[in-house]
Amino acid sequence: MQNSSFNFKKTAFAVFALGCLSFTTAVAQDVPKPPKMEPAMTEFWEPEVKAITPVTGTTAPSDAIVLFDGKNLDQWVSVNDPAKPAGWTVNKGVFTVKKGTGNIQTKQAFQDYQLHIEWQIPEKINGKGQGRGNSGLFLASTGRGDDGYELQILDSYNNRTYANGQAASIYKQTPPLVNATRKPGEWNVYDIVFTAPRFKENGTLFSPARVTVMHNGIIVQNNTELKGPTVYIGLPQYKVHGKAPIKLQDHGDPSEPISYRNIWIREL
Amino acid sequence: MQNSSFNFKKTAFAVFALGCLSFTTAVAQDVPKPPKMEPAMTEFWEPEVKAITPVTGTTAPSDAIVLFDGKNLDQWVSVNDPAKPAGWTVNKGVFTVKKGTGNIQTKQAFQDYQLHIEWQIPEKINGKGQGRGNSGLFLASTGRGDDGYELQILDSYNNRTYANGQAASIYKQTPPLVNATRKPGEWNVYDIVFTAPRFKENGTLFSPARVTVMHNGIIVQNNTELKGPTVYIGLPQYKVHGKAPIKLQDHGDPSEPISYRNIWIREL
Amino acid sequence: MQNSSFNFKKTAFAVFALGCLSFTTAVAQDVPKPPKMEPAMTEFWEPEVKAITPVTGTTAPSDAIVLFDGKNLDQWVSVNDPAKPAGWTVNKGVFTVKKGTGNIQTKQAFQDYQLHIEWQIPEKINGKGQGRGNSGLFLASTGRGDDGYELQILDSYNNRTYANGQAASIYKQTPPLVNATRKPGEWNVYDIVFTAPRFKENGTLFSPARVTVMHNGIIVQNNTELKGPTVYIGLPQYKVHGKAPIKLQDHGDPSEPISYRNIWIREL
Amino acid sequence: MQNSSFNFKKTAFAVFALGCLSFTTAVAQDVPKPPKMEPAMTEFWEPEVKAITPVTGTTAPSDAIVLFDGKNLDQWVSVNDPAKPAGWTVNKGVFTVKKGTGNIQTKQAFQDYQLHIEWQIPEKINGKGQGRGNSGLFLASTGRGDDGYELQILDSYNNRTYANGQAASIYKQTPPLVNATRKPGEWNVYDIVFTAPRFKENGTLFSPARVTVMHNGIIVQNNTELKGPTVYIGLPQYKVHGKAPIKLQDHGDPSEPISYRNIWIREL
Repeated sequence: MQNSSFNFKKTAFAVFALGCLSFTTAVAQDVPKPPKMEPAMTEFWEPEVKAITPVTGTTAPSDAIVLFDGKNLDQWVSVNDPAKPAGWTVNKGVFTVKKGTGNIQTKQAFQDYQLHIEWQIPEKINGKGQGRGNSGLFLASTGRGDDGYELQILDSYNNRTYANGQAASIYKQTPPLVNATRKPGEWNVYDIVFTAPRFKENGTLFSPARVTVMHNGIIVQNNTELKGPTVYIGLPQYKVHGKAPIKLQDHGDPSEPISYRNIWIREL
Repeated sequence: MQNSSFNFKKTAFAVFALGCLSFTTAVAQDVPKPPKMEPAMTEFWEPEVKAITPVTGTTAPSDAIVLFDGKNLDQWVSVNDPAKPAGWTVNKGVFTVKKGTGNIQTKQAFQDYQLHIEWQIPEKINGKGQGRGNSGLFLASTGRGDDGYELQILDSYNNRTYANGQAASIYKQTPPLVNATRKPGEWNVYDIVFTAPRFKENGTLFSPARVTVMHNGIIVQNNTELKGPTVYIGLPQYKVHGKAPIKLQDHGDPSEPISYRNIWIREL
Repeated sequence: MQNSSFNFKKTAFAVFALGCLSFTTAVAQDVPKPPKMEPAMTEFWEPEVKAITPVTGTTAPSDAIVLFDGKNLDQWVSVNDPAKPAGWTVNKGVFTVKKGTGNIQTKQAFQDYQLHIEWQIPEKINGKGQGRGNSGLFLASTGRGDDGYELQILDSYNNRTYANGQAASIYKQTPPLVNATRKPGEWNVYDIVFTAPRFKENGTLFSPARVTVMHNGIIVQNNTELKGPTVYIGLPQYKVHGKAPIKLQDHGDPSEPISYRNIWIREL
Repeated sequence: MQNSSFNFKKTAFAVFALGCLSFTTAVAQDVPKPPKMEPAMTEFWEPEVKAITPVTGTTAPSDAIVLFDGKNLDQWVSVNDPAKPAGWTVNKGVFTVKKGTGNIQTKQAFQDYQLHIEWQIPEKINGKGQGRGNSGLFLASTGRGDDGYELQILDSYNNRTYANGQAASIYKQTPPLVNATRKPGEWNVYDIVFTAPRFKENGTLFSPARVTVMHNGIIVQNNTELKGPTVYIGLPQYKVHGKAPIKLQDHGDPSEPISYRNIWIREL
């Protein structure tokens, strides 16, 4: 304990000892009780909590970085060649995967964040299982191609596939708690809170990545621990990385392409 | 290890030992590598993820228990006398705290859940700090009065108070990450994921309660660990409890009363 | 917040507002500061911490259940037929795996506990890899045979095998942080703290099992999260279980058998 | 999901669809099952686990930094003036608090580690409560004086004090699970595993410090979460810090001084 307590405690004990002299069988009830606190002792004014303007309709919160406002893909680049612009199609306030142009990712890199994103499977969609409206959101892009932590995007409305491969699954890891996917043609919303993994100086994992996902207002991943970056074959294994872009997948399927709109991010 | 592996592993080692005979300095690179897996080995179809109809406008999800649908308080009772109906006022699709009638709580008890609730500070509101539009949502009501885990409800729009006492704080414990409160007269939304505490057979705490809160679409509590039930004076301390009702506070202030609407819950 | 605070806070605000009148640029520094607490407010006497006599040489702590005191296997039964006594050999204060008699387990079932156990590989040991001095400690026996959570016991002194299969690994899951195995003929000590998994009423996992292991005084598993019960083939998956016996493995190898001594457990 | 899976999955589905044609009511049982894995698929050889020589009697493990070997205080400095040597007394293989010379701390700074330390209350000890054999081990010294995370050292053998102030408590925070203190004159052993807190770039807490303590072979703190640096008055609050020395307290009591021996640390 700290030095300055010594006198205090000695006094306390003297009183206590005295009070106990003739009550040896009741000792347990005679120990000091902490003095009553005042209400204000647990009221903390600092630091002041920053006020923001929250979500209003389709307007991003005031402290968000808007990643897509319906006009252009200026916040995105091609994953194949990050020096080149993202080659997907922007039209009528949404952008759409352009098959064969490859994945796209944000110019900026992030660590922990809240992300809002909306995605739509085309109303007329063919294919089955993984071959029906397949894309993906990489919560952190840890390399080229499909490297990273993938939150699955897929038409999972009346389209069963493996549970840990359907929409809102941590792909090949953890199924969503329920299937909250809307019909093709309707917009799906992901509200995501991502906590990046941390590593020790020696390169080993300190704490795994974690993610919470609301899918159309329904909790589907509740602070889920990620097992490592997504792998299509085999078992995931963490590798050191720092801040990373967010990536969207051009899955290259013959099925009609997926569209996105209203994307914003808040660093945490 | 398991018995059946013995022969397998012996063989593996025989091969391995042979391969290493003349490469003593390169042993590290000659260790067996796990055989390549097939993609389907990490694809799990069972159990099937249950499909639900998610939130649509103001319609609750298909798997929710509607706690208030705009018509009556049939799902609620008075805390002072749980045999009596909740005495608050229902009008035009919302219900409003009726000062002096005391707290109300749900008839049903819950453990882990997702809760959606909307609340409104009247447009004309007086008072300051804690005296301005004060109510509270008890995530689990662990006794009469104000016993339980309180998520603060207060007019925190341009109304500073102690950080751990403003709207969306775990009252007297943890401030929200940001202040996302809307203006008086507008509706605020809480989307809450609550994990109840667990206790050991001997009555000690096994795992604390945790809560995630989205306030108007903004993450304000991210899997926050609760320190115990809310206490106005002193330090919180866990006590054993099981499933518990959800409770709303009649704070008894002279200021205009708070209204609620669109309340539903999904057990997790 | 709680009702009784209203007057107090109003007063506090009145004073505060007054104090701020002419210091508009210094508002941030003029918010109320929590009153200074007294030292005794954070001194808690109850409940009294139970005093025990700790480990002294080879004497178990005073609050432990002794599972083997050098004399007999009265605390153990055969896993193949729990109605029958454990068929292993007791001699000179230690007991030794009797090949072919099968696994043995404790009569009592446990949940969370601290376990002390000592094991010895015979001084003259043959075989390699998994075929050299192989046994295993199942932290909870969740079924017949090798069902349960296995902490590996093996001669890992100058005997490389797969990292997640050597002594002090969570078998087929997590390697130890370092290899602290003593020479064959010397006694190894495991000091283990096990937290059992918890399950929800619906049968899904609430919290995974966790284990801390000191191997000969060295931390080798630091609150490691178990992925599920050990499986020799495939990926682990949790299944509901309650309190469970502790089990030792008769691995059935041709190599010389492993001995145990000084086993005690403290329920937590 | 990943691109390369497309053909595979389509094939899988063709087969699956075929198999289901006439069994519409039994669909649930006809979903694909993951192919059986091979044992070696979950056997990981790399990275090789480093072999060390564990604790042997009073000899530190081979990978430890010896902080006191019985001879001198070369690894320690004065906290009041880190340019000066530690002023405590070394005699017969132990060192002893020299009243009035102030706290001492290690020259080296650490983050996560395992620490072994032995301490002795003199056989003839006077005083009561906190005034009886009081010192303290700061798991990380975050400033001058008594700043840091204190694991209490005190004569708690038949000497009741507040539970969160007795030996093996996180001082003013968390009591030990049991009181395993040995008699004055005997040596007490702490085996400690400390995980330092981590902070975000913006200075807020990312993950709290955690500590596991074995006291004389008994688990007394099991991955306990620290609430912040120890404060004698008031409530703890985290502040950013990096690697930090380990500190021992000169409590300045009139009672006979405490001795230490056999101190080593292993960085984790």
